[in-house]
Amino acid sequence: MVEVRIPISVSEAVKRIQAEAGMLGSEFVPLEESYGRILAKPLVAAHDVPSFDRSPYDGFAIRSKDSAGASGTNRVAFEVVDHIGAGAVSGKKVGKHQAVRIMTGAQLPQGADAVVMLEQTQESGAAADAEGAAISAAFTIRKPFEAGENISFRGEDMSSGEEILPAGSLVHPGTIALLATFGYERVEVAKLPVVGILSTGTELLEPGSALQPGKIRNSNGPMIAAQLRRMGVRSRMYAAAVDRLDDMLETVRQALTECDCLITTGGVSVGDFDLLPAVYEQLGANVLFNKVAMRPGSVTTVAVLDGRYLFGLSGNPSACYTGFELFARPALLSMMGAERVYPMQTQAVLGEDFGKANPFTRFVRAVYDGRSVRPAGFNKSNAVSSIGRGNALIVLPGGTRGFKTGDTVDVLLPGMEEGSSVWTL
Amino acid sequence: MVEVRIPISVSEAVKRIQAEAGMLGSEFVPLEESYGRILAKPLVAAHDVPSFDRSPYDGFAIRSKDSAGASGTNRVAFEVVDHIGAGAVSGKKVGKHQAVRIMTGAQLPQGADAVVMLEQTQESGAAADAEGAAISAAFTIRKPFEAGENISFRGEDMSSGEEILPAGSLVHPGTIALLATFGYERVEVAKLPVVGILSTGTELLEPGSALQPGKIRNSNGPMIAAQLRRMGVRSRMYAAAVDRLDDMLETVRQALTECDCLITTGGVSVGDFDLLPAVYEQLGANVLFNKVAMRPGSVTTVAVLDGRYLFGLSGNPSACYTGFELFARPALLSMMGAERVYPMQTQAVLGEDFGKANPFTRFVRAVYDGRSVRPAGFNKSNAVSSIGRGNALIVLPGGTRGFKTGDTVDVLLPGMEEGSSVWTL
Repeated sequence: MVEVRIPISVSEAVKRIQAEAGMLGSEFVPLEESYGRILAKPLVAAHDVPSFDRSPYDGFAIRSKDSAGASGTNRVAFEVVDHIGAGAVSGKKVGKHQAVRIMTGAQLPQGADAVVMLEQTQESGAAADAEGAAISAAFTIRKPFEAGENISFRGEDMSSGEEILPAGSLVHPGTIALLATFGYERVEVAKLPVVGILSTGTELLEPGSALQPGKIRNSNGPMIAAQLRRMGVRSRMYAAAVDRLDDMLETVRQALTECDCLITTGGVSVGDFDLLPAVYEQLGANVLFNKVAMRPGSVTTVAVLDGRYLFGLSGNPSACYTGFELFARPALLSMMGAERVYPMQTQAVLGEDFGKANPFTRFVRAVYDGRSVRPAGFNKSNAVSSIGRGNALIVLPGGTRGFKTGDTVDVLLPGMEEGSSVWTL
Repeated sequence: MVEVRIPISVSEAVKRIQAEAGMLGSEFVPLEESYGRILAKPLVAAHDVPSFDRSPYDGFAIRSKDSAGASGTNRVAFEVVDHIGAGAVSGKKVGKHQAVRIMTGAQLPQGADAVVMLEQTQESGAAADAEGAAISAAFTIRKPFEAGENISFRGEDMSSGEEILPAGSLVHPGTIALLATFGYERVEVAKLPVVGILSTGTELLEPGSALQPGKIRNSNGPMIAAQLRRMGVRSRMYAAAVDRLDDMLETVRQALTECDCLITTGGVSVGDFDLLPAVYEQLGANVLFNKVAMRPGSVTTVAVLDGRYLFGLSGNPSACYTGFELFARPALLSMMGAERVYPMQTQAVLGEDFGKANPFTRFVRAVYDGRSVRPAGFNKSNAVSSIGRGNALIVLPGGTRGFKTGDTVDVLLPGMEEGSSVWTL
């Protein structure tokens, strides 16, 4: 009466999915629009940074040897021969007991090999230099400086030709700073996948509809669109008469001509109105698995056809949310050649008991505050409240009999901008 | 010779800034565009969820009392009188030894008070009911069911009128699921601040320009635009002849008529070309502080004029990045009434020695992998590479003499979608 499905582990499921990821190619986008994209090429330093020896402080550029012997009782005087801001280059060469007044970021003038910070100096109107000659616009110092003191050397941050970030890095605000530093106006990034969403379920109403007996509004479609948006990917919505196999089949076929990946919700179980298994069969899709040893979402099915993914997520909201983050997001990131495709994983102390035992790995929607983590309320696979209230997923290994307050548990952080390059669960 | 500034603690700086945050008001946006915004009103359950008693499994709805006495040697038979999918409501009332075939999510039919899972049944063609009468389309069970077994009860996830999320919550994908469930087509969210960016510095070239002696390209402006974009806020770029006070003043005045907040980079130090202190003075702005006991970014200055913030961030890229996340982001989120305005804070094990001692609190750009954290390379306030390579900030308290591998340190995660409601550093 019931189709027997053999569950595979979450790790095995992830492995099978990742093995199928094909690359999408690259495109150029303006620097201002590159935030959130994936670098298609390594970011290589186009020049030394700094590109010249410069002063990290407001102060005076001097020749260090002229400061020899300076002390509190033997202040040494310097004559100020030029005065430059950042961006300017002094035309003067610093000579004996001469100094150039210099601002933070300014290029070190010729002849100088040290910078005296402004607060290390004392103004002195007319003075005598070490040899007793009269000088004007002068200052004195009371300690000797070493060659190279208070200088940001050319190339100390980055050397020309050095690989700073590998291909596959997420473009975050710090990456933008690097790209701007090297003068990129356009950035070569991975193309974004086109992702279709088809919510199936004979009980579904659209968000704006009035509630009807026995029906619920479609929350999975908009939720997945937002999960995609969180990773910078736009989606297309599809609709089908979900109780008619021919219409479902036609819609899925159409979506696969327009999308790199189709995410369906619902219809993957063994109920009499779950048509997706038949759709996969009729399409001739390669079903990678149709059961995973996890809760929620054990009926999650993933298939591949002509290099395109078909993610059959559970229609239960919590299962759907979790299935997207565990399976769809890493696959989409791999299609973009990303380095860190898996959710960021950490550990935290459980803030309350979790008594439920389970033979399967359990993913619990949870609230993580940086130290401890607690389930985000009502915990059933069809729960909606806990997805809305949570910001994390607790991972409880299968074969366990519940957990106690104070236990250390694994936690996934789907809300981290960039995740992990390894799957260790 | 040098203006004396009194540094205040980072906490005190944050406190002074937050005290000035004025609310921006709210607006309605379509559900599809609400991701990343801040809820202006609490999200209250508009109806019970589920809104009817329903089946969490594919199976049969029965009257539990009819299952009394069932066992492996005394299988009890039921007649299937109807067959419904999710979204349909059976017109039949379940009578004695009757069952309705029911799919996951379907409303429980009248009369029934338990659901037998499909896998708990055995098909039997013709059979006899408990009284010996012949029935067709039947199944048998071998265990008794309790009233309420395998039912998702109306309101068990959320009750009508219950506050699910407070005003000030970030709209993340789970929030979208909640909003869709309750039929929101439009969502009332906080207005977004308009933020101006003005990069000052006589050494700055625009990203597309060829490098010139003594000059660097402006990386802070594009970086801050991306930091704003990461929090869903768009920016306007301003430019001024930054070595002319009158032009700077005019540009800042203009920006303050067009923006809720102006972020400047550079020009806040005590160098001879640092004009922003004079600009604040001429504008009559209330300078909240002009020195913070932190590295990098000690010269960070924040002022307020007519309810508008003026963030004077350091021109050093690392200091600029840090100053934005510590000071500007929380203030902008507070203007939107957000609940969690501070960066997510956790702890991690230091993956390598950090020998530098400092009297001031130090924020080190770092790579966090969920367990350990290590400095992201070259560590000076003018470093760009470490902002690009890092995803976190290590916080080392002032008055310490360096840290060793294995020490537990505080870590801020600016890349987390939603941060913390408390500042505990």
